[in-house]
Amino acid sequence: MENNIVGEYTFKVFPSEVDFRKKLTLPNLTNYLLNSAGNHAEIYGFGLREVNQNNLSWVLSRIVIEMYKYPYNRDKIKVQTWVESVMKMFTMRNFEFLDKNGETIGYARTIWALIDKDSRKPIDLVKQGIPFRICDTKECPIAKASKIPTVKADVKETFSVKYSDVDLNHHLNSSKYIEHIIDAFTLHKFSKRDIKRFEIEFLAECKFGENISLLKCECPNNEFIVELQNEEGKIVSKSKIVFGDQDLDEKYDLGV
Amino acid sequence: MENNIVGEYTFKVFPSEVDFRKKLTLPNLTNYLLNSAGNHAEIYGFGLREVNQNNLSWVLSRIVIEMYKYPYNRDKIKVQTWVESVMKMFTMRNFEFLDKNGETIGYARTIWALIDKDSRKPIDLVKQGIPFRICDTKECPIAKASKIPTVKADVKETFSVKYSDVDLNHHLNSSKYIEHIIDAFTLHKFSKRDIKRFEIEFLAECKFGENISLLKCECPNNEFIVELQNEEGKIVSKSKIVFGDQDLDEKYDLGV
Repeated sequence: MENNIVGEYTFKVFPSEVDFRKKLTLPNLTNYLLNSAGNHAEIYGFGLREVNQNNLSWVLSRIVIEMYKYPYNRDKIKVQTWVESVMKMFTMRNFEFLDKNGETIGYARTIWALIDKDSRKPIDLVKQGIPFRICDTKECPIAKASKIPTVKADVKETFSVKYSDVDLNHHLNSSKYIEHIIDAFTLHKFSKRDIKRFEIEFLAECKFGENISLLKCECPNNEFIVELQNEEGKIVSKSKIVFGDQDLDEKYDLGV
Repeated sequence: MENNIVGEYTFKVFPSEVDFRKKLTLPNLTNYLLNSAGNHAEIYGFGLREVNQNNLSWVLSRIVIEMYKYPYNRDKIKVQTWVESVMKMFTMRNFEFLDKNGETIGYARTIWALIDKDSRKPIDLVKQGIPFRICDTKECPIAKASKIPTVKADVKETFSVKYSDVDLNHHLNSSKYIEHIIDAFTLHKFSKRDIKRFEIEFLAECKFGENISLLKCECPNNEFIVELQNEEGKIVSKSKIVFGDQDLDEKYDLGV
């Protein structure tokens, strides 16, 4: 069991998971991350299926991802995951991404709460007696989630939550928040720079049929803040997207 | 080599690939199908990478899928694929889907053309000397693609082609056509019925930034026709979606 305190999962990048540059997209990387977290939690008996039996559910509060290099189409990627800490209402789970040669290509930090499925309110993790196994020997050298400012900008676009957007719980899927957010950028932007750091704070659930507004503002240092709001003007997520500070070596013909 | 004339590939369904009913979605099933086709073509030396070297590219003209049963979250699914025939301008590749117990859960038929990457025009497959290996012993018992009528209906909605929609060739990804099409249906519809048969005819490529209109009309016998048109009113795809003729046994609480 001691050996499993850091879980390791390997994925092979599908053609359908890459963008026009043949690089794995952030929403698909997030799917690998969520899948690894789920599998690892299951080993210790606190996966989604297990907690569901007590009418509880895991919800993501924050994700921070930093990538030094993105895997390409058909590349293998290893995802290592471990629990960093457990507080009363939250637990922190970290990730390291490695390429096929075992070289580190990125890290991620996530924060989770366990909620009651009816009240949708968080449960005291310590009282609940979840059998966490904390790893205090593995480092995650990226900065923790920062406080993301509120956007002062006009609505850039709106979308409604559709069949393909919703997850098992009938809410907008975590990786679909990210897909809608990065779709606020052009191919031209991605042809010049990679996303170096991505942060998201999930503040409210979005149901099927809800109309969501996207607000985007550009800050200095290649940073963008993107906010999603529901019809009542409530902020459902805040995110910060930091593009690399140097142009990519590769040249992409956008053909438009 | 003879043994590979039917390729077989196994996939494990990710939580991110299922819908609110925990069933694999059609666009994700299509990704499995495309991935299997790509891997199988590669064995014989006519995969995308190989033909790309001659400035050629495979494009999908038609997909027909019939599903008797959909796999659930974490289920394994086997995809068998083989080439049925080769004509001057088209080749037909079929698929059988099997569940973890080896039971057939569906079939698919696809039609492909090989195009010149610059002219975007199809190449004579016979003259080109592609090393196809035709399998004439395996049956695909579903009806071939039918002629899909033109829709007489108002525009239901529009969407623009975004970063996450485009593939390696900077065009709307085949499975994203299907995602946009099935997103024209409600959770309520999927809570009652599965899609039993899905047909799509790809008629034109869609580039990043293009605004696409979706037209939908309901026909008798649980059939729907959905058409996508570009800004010039050109039809880019036609599809026919047939839902099952009986309500599902499962009951889904839509929570809305």
